[in-house]
Amino acid sequence: MSSDGAFCPVYASIDLLQEKWTLHIIRALLENPLGFNELGRVVGANPTTLAHRLERLERLGILERTMHSVMPPRTSYTLTPAGLALQDVIGAIDRWGRTHLPAPPEEKPRRTPRLTA
Amino acid sequence: MSSDGAFCPVYASIDLLQEKWTLHIIRALLENPLGFNELGRVVGANPTTLAHRLERLERLGILERTMHSVMPPRTSYTLTPAGLALQDVIGAIDRWGRTHLPAPPEEKPRRTPRLTA
Repeated sequence: MSSDGAFCPVYASIDLLQEKWTLHIIRALLENPLGFNELGRVVGANPTTLAHRLERLERLGILERTMHSVMPPRTSYTLTPAGLALQDVIGAIDRWGRTHLPAPPEEKPRRTPRLTA
Repeated sequence: MSSDGAFCPVYASIDLLQEKWTLHIIRALLENPLGFNELGRVVGANPTTLAHRLERLERLGILERTMHSVMPPRTSYTLTPAGLALQDVIGAIDRWGRTHLPAPPEEKPRRTPRLTA
């Protein structure tokens, strides 16, 4: 527990993983390496935000960027062992979602007036 | 995998859990029920955002709000069984963080010029 500046790995990990799109990026790359545009399409993030997230994850050693010297030049993103280890987190989210989030959130009861016959 | 509108529990769960502060709120409440102000202090979220997150989590059946009829009136937030089941997700993040995020991210090499004696 720490919002007081002392380093706490779980607090820091939550801070990282709650950044919008980060978990979606990890989940997509757990399936297979992807290029920038493919990743944008799969994840649904805009290019600027996606670039920021990828840069941070690369800096933290969670993913690797590979430049392929083909024409036209291609870049692909692959998870490192630290990134692959996030499979446990995505797996736990997956299990939780299947059990506890069965219906689309926005379609849960909303106290709409019920019309009786 | 779904950013195409079809419901997918893992995609929906990631969307929920990546909302800023949500994982911090869950983690704090896994330790014990808390009032609104305590939660704000522990989590570090501003009151407006905190109120939105709590409302959404309550609507999804992840936490419960209890009004205590004391003077002054008090509200406390408690995880439901669905919320408590997120222990598995927080536990996985905790284990990942301890193994793969040992140093404060912002103190990793930043190419700052090194002054030598």
